[in-house]
Amino acid sequence: MNDIQDSGLVLHNYFRSSTSVRVRAALHLKGVAYEYRAYHLRKGEQRSEAYLAVNRFGIVPALELPDGRVLNQSLAIVEWLDEAYPAPPLLPADPVARARVRGMALALACEVHPLNNLKVLGVLRERFGADDAAVTDWFRHWVAETFAPLEAELADSAGAYCFGDEPGLADLCLFAQCVNNRRFQVDMAPYPVLDRIYKTCLANPAFEAALPENAPDAE
Amino acid sequence: MNDIQDSGLVLHNYFRSSTSVRVRAALHLKGVAYEYRAYHLRKGEQRSEAYLAVNRFGIVPALELPDGRVLNQSLAIVEWLDEAYPAPPLLPADPVARARVRGMALALACEVHPLNNLKVLGVLRERFGADDAAVTDWFRHWVAETFAPLEAELADSAGAYCFGDEPGLADLCLFAQCVNNRRFQVDMAPYPVLDRIYKTCLANPAFEAALPENAPDAE
Repeated sequence: MNDIQDSGLVLHNYFRSSTSVRVRAALHLKGVAYEYRAYHLRKGEQRSEAYLAVNRFGIVPALELPDGRVLNQSLAIVEWLDEAYPAPPLLPADPVARARVRGMALALACEVHPLNNLKVLGVLRERFGADDAAVTDWFRHWVAETFAPLEAELADSAGAYCFGDEPGLADLCLFAQCVNNRRFQVDMAPYPVLDRIYKTCLANPAFEAALPENAPDAE
Repeated sequence: MNDIQDSGLVLHNYFRSSTSVRVRAALHLKGVAYEYRAYHLRKGEQRSEAYLAVNRFGIVPALELPDGRVLNQSLAIVEWLDEAYPAPPLLPADPVARARVRGMALALACEVHPLNNLKVLGVLRERFGADDAAVTDWFRHWVAETFAPLEAELADSAGAYCFGDEPGLADLCLFAQCVNNRRFQVDMAPYPVLDRIYKTCLANPAFEAALPENAPDAE
């Protein structure tokens, strides 16, 4: 982690939310201090009147700026952080390289995570009577659909991290997804490159500090 | 649409894919000519050996550059287009404004579309025996979860388009989702601002040309 810079930023989030993990790791990589405010998703605190006044979408994370404006959506927040606090960069300078990193990040953010988050698994249980085994199969299915081609993609090209030897936007998403995978015992054996990058992230204090179990509201 | 610029770009896509609609509208807004290559998703052509050699993720759209490099994920492709062909811009210049537009785009791209695309609805039918009524309810549920707060957000702030009076990244995603909604008869009455913006897009030749029914492979 870099030296801590005072920022006046408030991160509205939840320890276990993997989109929150992405933003926390980005803040730590940038060395930006922030106020941590927790909303317990299983208790529905993200739907409280107080939080809806901050973020009417009723989801975490949201980043509140010192002037009270609120940014939504983890990848939009991380792109803003990268523009507001350019060092160290989370995207490469070359446009095609940037597109490649964004593509990896979005493959995880659009093809895996949305299908596997708490609210979706809840609807599967309520509407379709999915039991634990069916929910686990569903979770693992969407992980495999993207992890398999991502493994092949990175086998040809990865450095210490997804793109080169410094962490970036794609690593934030891969790390957060791998953290999430722990809850469904996803076998990482078919994905040796992804697993190696995940472990490289785990050994980086900025990522380690972003882990759910290291958050103030951890249970 | 702008004057057409020769680009050497090849868009691998499908007429009905709403992520393909986003990219086609962006190309048309930029006035960038491209070669259209179609893969019939219901026939599984995106899983053909020929296409997997182009894009190992086996999903559309993908944008092939003149040097053979291939970009994945519609939002990464659109961000690249915006960097490679800066006029007209699809994102505002101010970082917080950019984050707001990206946040709106990602709310649709991460909270709505991934839950409602063809492959997910297929899994719901296969694994959970979802019938047409259950699939329609599921589709409408995820639309409403994001459209309701987005309507409130835009009621305070929209111009002719989601952000100001020129179309941008958020409009690409809103337009594509509204096009998709037609197949599930989503009632737009609760969303007068979103519906007005959708109709403004429909009246713009760049968006009109991106409609599924105006694509070369339309059925």
